[in-house]
Amino acid sequence: MELRDEFERCFAGLAAIGRDGAGGWTRLAWTVEDRAARGWFAAEAAARGLDVEQDRAGNLWAWWGGRGPGALAVGSHLDTVPRGGAFDGALGVVGGLLAVGALARGGAVPRWPVAVVAFADEEGGRFGMATFGSRVLAGTLDPAAVLERTGTDGVTLAEALRAAGLDPAALGPDPARLARLAAAVELHVEQGRWLVDHDAPLGLASGIWPHGRWRLDLAGEANHAGTTRLEDRHDPVLGLAEAALAARAAAARHGAVATVGRLEVEPNSTNSVAARVRAWLDVRAADAATLDRVLAEVGGVLDRAAEGHGLAVEVACESRSPAVAFDRALTDRLAACLRGRGLDPVELPTAAGHDAGVLAAAVPSAMLFVRNPTGVSHSPAEHAELSDCLAGVEALAAIVEELACR
Amino acid sequence: MELRDEFERCFAGLAAIGRDGAGGWTRLAWTVEDRAARGWFAAEAAARGLDVEQDRAGNLWAWWGGRGPGALAVGSHLDTVPRGGAFDGALGVVGGLLAVGALARGGAVPRWPVAVVAFADEEGGRFGMATFGSRVLAGTLDPAAVLERTGTDGVTLAEALRAAGLDPAALGPDPARLARLAAAVELHVEQGRWLVDHDAPLGLASGIWPHGRWRLDLAGEANHAGTTRLEDRHDPVLGLAEAALAARAAAARHGAVATVGRLEVEPNSTNSVAARVRAWLDVRAADAATLDRVLAEVGGVLDRAAEGHGLAVEVACESRSPAVAFDRALTDRLAACLRGRGLDPVELPTAAGHDAGVLAAAVPSAMLFVRNPTGVSHSPAEHAELSDCLAGVEALAAIVEELACR
Repeated sequence: MELRDEFERCFAGLAAIGRDGAGGWTRLAWTVEDRAARGWFAAEAAARGLDVEQDRAGNLWAWWGGRGPGALAVGSHLDTVPRGGAFDGALGVVGGLLAVGALARGGAVPRWPVAVVAFADEEGGRFGMATFGSRVLAGTLDPAAVLERTGTDGVTLAEALRAAGLDPAALGPDPARLARLAAAVELHVEQGRWLVDHDAPLGLASGIWPHGRWRLDLAGEANHAGTTRLEDRHDPVLGLAEAALAARAAAARHGAVATVGRLEVEPNSTNSVAARVRAWLDVRAADAATLDRVLAEVGGVLDRAAEGHGLAVEVACESRSPAVAFDRALTDRLAACLRGRGLDPVELPTAAGHDAGVLAAAVPSAMLFVRNPTGVSHSPAEHAELSDCLAGVEALAAIVEELACR
Repeated sequence: MELRDEFERCFAGLAAIGRDGAGGWTRLAWTVEDRAARGWFAAEAAARGLDVEQDRAGNLWAWWGGRGPGALAVGSHLDTVPRGGAFDGALGVVGGLLAVGALARGGAVPRWPVAVVAFADEEGGRFGMATFGSRVLAGTLDPAAVLERTGTDGVTLAEALRAAGLDPAALGPDPARLARLAAAVELHVEQGRWLVDHDAPLGLASGIWPHGRWRLDLAGEANHAGTTRLEDRHDPVLGLAEAALAARAAAARHGAVATVGRLEVEPNSTNSVAARVRAWLDVRAADAATLDRVLAEVGGVLDRAAEGHGLAVEVACESRSPAVAFDRALTDRLAACLRGRGLDPVELPTAAGHDAGVLAAAVPSAMLFVRNPTGVSHSPAEHAELSDCLAGVEALAAIVEELACR
């Protein structure tokens, strides 16, 4: 009962931050909500005797037992997509704090240091670059190339970082920090129905599908919606409509997923043919070749739309992440550890990017998922049952004990 | 040369107001730009000895020779669509001021009063209700039903009106004012290619196509763009894409025009399936039956999209204007008057709404169009040659002389 109470109290504390009047939670990176969540993290870590530091990329590290080497990192992220759910990211951070707290209270002593990490800007909901903090840390994102990028609120990343007290010029890879890590394990709510379909509360990820985001710029010509003959129009909304439907069809053909979830229309006037549309295409597939095939098919439709509607079309890759295979030996060891405690994890692939997937290139990494009854995520309807969340925390505690306390 | 200089100076004065940093002109109703344009109008009218008043709907009336009865109204509007052109509305207001000014300077005496009118919020670019000022005046729009409507900037119409010094409670039809009008003539830049195709600098409108705006609300379910299987999605962007393409196809089949130029997506996040899309559909056709047919075909596609994608779809009519036939006797008289001066106007239909079209139900009305070399309108590229603009002003002066000074 004690862990249940502690979980409910701790989880509710984070969930109190960034409630969006329009529904769900909005904690975008480097905002007042993000700052409040970071304050919450520091307080909860301190209450468990952990030693909190912020790295140069803005990731927060709460240490139990020194700062490495040979350390285990557990944790996830505090930020959300706009109007997202309560569990994505939060469950892993709360779970890490509770797992370490329970072990410490139980008298465990870390043979190897453990860090509960809150990675910065995992969702990319403001500046469009997912897993920002872990990618800067790992050196797979060059911050100089994106500091002048403008967020959804018109503020540049550099300005936002400075407002949050970070030095944009100091951002950069931190191989020494990574070298102090022996392993990384991220606990996360599942964002699909694999565990529901397999009737399992917990799962270990085999890997992450390759995925990427492309910005589609379609330029036509603003004109009067009444007096412009159809044959005289250069309407980018029609080109975008064809591309969005083509993306869905291509994804279905190839067993992939493709999404247009973000759109900007100019001048966005009811009685004007639009001048331009900017849209973002998110594509994920089981392997890189399939992803390229989906993208090529959408590109072909865009080319034909450009010709048919007289549009200028540009496609720019904003980010692309290769396939990730989580560490086989580590994952097998965690599976054996959990089976030994009666927690039988299934193995599942995932099409979502995660900080653990970024770290996997440099550090043996694994991911532990908790069942989501509807599979809904990035939505206020995202959910996990309390009993499943507690199973996740217990499993994470077992993992920390296995990897750091023996 | 004198009229040319006066036109260039006067037109440039209005064009200096509301230049948009992103291109074109943005003078939305009841904004600081609108206020500046109104100040410009009052000053230009006063410089020509005209007596300016504002009616309860916010329309400005600059009187030459008393305030009626038996008056002739000429004029157009000062507001623009977002990032619109320099001529739409402006040409008619400048033309009215110059025509009356030239007649007065030439010693003409008005037998009947003449009003140069600047109608309020013709474009509906902020609150979505086109020809707002003339419709309130004519009693074909109930202001009480729309005062709480929110503009593109989140401000309600009532708040915007109060900020502009108007009393929202005083808005309403003004039949006494309309009864003082014997005729109304609006000068306007053409917004299509009819005059170019007919090699004519000037045209008189036969009528205005029936047209309307419908708001489409498509509600799906926000979800993760990576982990949500295609078959589990309820993606409103796909439904909207199908509807936009269906609208274009239906319009083409029936010789009508249909446009989706404004879109709002929630939460508008790259890595989320959208929760909802709100889009606006603008449809215009030669007759009401054709317009209904286009709308029904789009509705059919929306119903199938709702079923296919598991969406909740609502269609709401925001405004609908019936066909307008301009006054036959008045239009014939104007044509004869212009032919007598060597200005041979052609006759053309229009698919754009105009204040003169609203007044036509209560007052004998006509419209005079000036050639637009590319037909582009509601765009920074909107244009009319100076010589054609001057022909328009001269024609309007001839009309005022014909109708009010004989």
